[in-house]
Amino acid sequence: MKNSHRIEEKKLKIGYAQFKPYFCDSEKNVKKIESLLKKKSWDLIVLPELSNSGYYFSSHEQLSNSSERAGDGIFTRMLLDISAKVGGYIIAGFCEKAKDNFYNSSFLAKPDGTWEVYRKTHLYNEEKLWFAPGDTGFKVHSIRFRNGVRVQIGMLICFDWIFPEAARTLALKGAQIICHPSNLVMPYCQRAMYARAVENRVFTITANRIGSEKNKNGKLKFTGQSLIYNPDGKKLAEAPLTKEEVRFVKIKISEADKKHLNKFNHVFEDRVVEKYYS
Amino acid sequence: MKNSHRIEEKKLKIGYAQFKPYFCDSEKNVKKIESLLKKKSWDLIVLPELSNSGYYFSSHEQLSNSSERAGDGIFTRMLLDISAKVGGYIIAGFCEKAKDNFYNSSFLAKPDGTWEVYRKTHLYNEEKLWFAPGDTGFKVHSIRFRNGVRVQIGMLICFDWIFPEAARTLALKGAQIICHPSNLVMPYCQRAMYARAVENRVFTITANRIGSEKNKNGKLKFTGQSLIYNPDGKKLAEAPLTKEEVRFVKIKISEADKKHLNKFNHVFEDRVVEKYYS
Repeated sequence: MKNSHRIEEKKLKIGYAQFKPYFCDSEKNVKKIESLLKKKSWDLIVLPELSNSGYYFSSHEQLSNSSERAGDGIFTRMLLDISAKVGGYIIAGFCEKAKDNFYNSSFLAKPDGTWEVYRKTHLYNEEKLWFAPGDTGFKVHSIRFRNGVRVQIGMLICFDWIFPEAARTLALKGAQIICHPSNLVMPYCQRAMYARAVENRVFTITANRIGSEKNKNGKLKFTGQSLIYNPDGKKLAEAPLTKEEVRFVKIKISEADKKHLNKFNHVFEDRVVEKYYS
Repeated sequence: MKNSHRIEEKKLKIGYAQFKPYFCDSEKNVKKIESLLKKKSWDLIVLPELSNSGYYFSSHEQLSNSSERAGDGIFTRMLLDISAKVGGYIIAGFCEKAKDNFYNSSFLAKPDGTWEVYRKTHLYNEEKLWFAPGDTGFKVHSIRFRNGVRVQIGMLICFDWIFPEAARTLALKGAQIICHPSNLVMPYCQRAMYARAVENRVFTITANRIGSEKNKNGKLKFTGQSLIYNPDGKKLAEAPLTKEEVRFVKIKISEADKKHLNKFNHVFEDRVVEKYYS
């Protein structure tokens, strides 16, 4: 008998927005992102790291002026506003002020007006001068889309990628999509994310920025090439090196639940933990 | 003042032998490997997984007939013999008989006649029907070359690659070169080893086999493309898909000691272990 009555799995439209944030100008970044996202329809979109502030700080004044408290500033309120209007989820890196610290954080805006924050665990290079190390750890969030599909998502920020333990932790906690706001300057990540997808059998969305920034310490060139891998390592989308791009692909989330490679092997159950590290 | 008196670091000649082992015919494999290796000069060479036996067993009789005790059979004795004659180290996968078990193992033959064995931790697919899971764990061996250079090496076998914890464990224990005898049939490894090299800043030598084998359960096609990455992810050598190749490259082992990516980041010291896994 044919499966003529089988219910077709509903797809999700997920993507990234690759652009160049204005340095230390949250208002202009708010307008920029509104223009990129507002008239589109999507379920989940990931934006680059530090999308409200730009990256290459020279002073605490710059940092302070372009930071905000999560859910209580023009940038994160704009994300919540767009999320509610579109009915989709947004993950965006932002410069966060919290307690007496600044964090390099990622904001998850939900259509119902609630939100989550992940604070970057592994700070890169001079970020250690400006930001406190993330104190949130790696959490997985269960979100439900308009079409009823429920998905577990996790967040990493940029340099977190190089530590396989970070993506692994999210995947072991059930993450099906790893959302990865980035400001990449080293040449490795886009190529290596293939391994993160394949070893954990998860979707990965790396949203990188473009352009360059300079200060008295030098010049940084960001490498674009935002990309989406499926759990089998197929590149579903890849942005150019230097051009702005908002791009979506349609996925079936159940692909991230196939942790068996064959009858005998399961990528998590086959881990021989007692042989690791010690 | 110029460093005219600086002592130039001595290079090492490391490589792989990619070939097609004869199925269940140790004697022919011994002759094959002798012909591949004997008249060459090298410091370290890696051969494929199960180089003495071939891969796709149908019976315990086949397994038993092509297995041997480490250091006490024609295959491993041949490796020790060549190692002593050439003055270099050989790592080769072999079908091992030990106690009352069979293991999918890797043999490290040293020029002084001593040896080490690593037993595959993560068995792939039907290997679980034939082999006992490896009981050695991931050890690092300090070896000294003819030119006086000392290197820490670790061994993985084939499917071990997909678990980032395996290469990580060796790297954290000090491995500078990960030697990786393989019989790869899935399409992922060669591309993903880039991440293993880059995330751990180590050399990797994947020695894969070519050809195909069949039995009543089906046919397996092995994917060749043996390769060597340096700690910065540069592909130093890559073999063809289907052709035999013995290939060497010259390396400076000190490249594997650069665990700092910049003044602020060290790939091991920056790990935030308390945030992982729990």
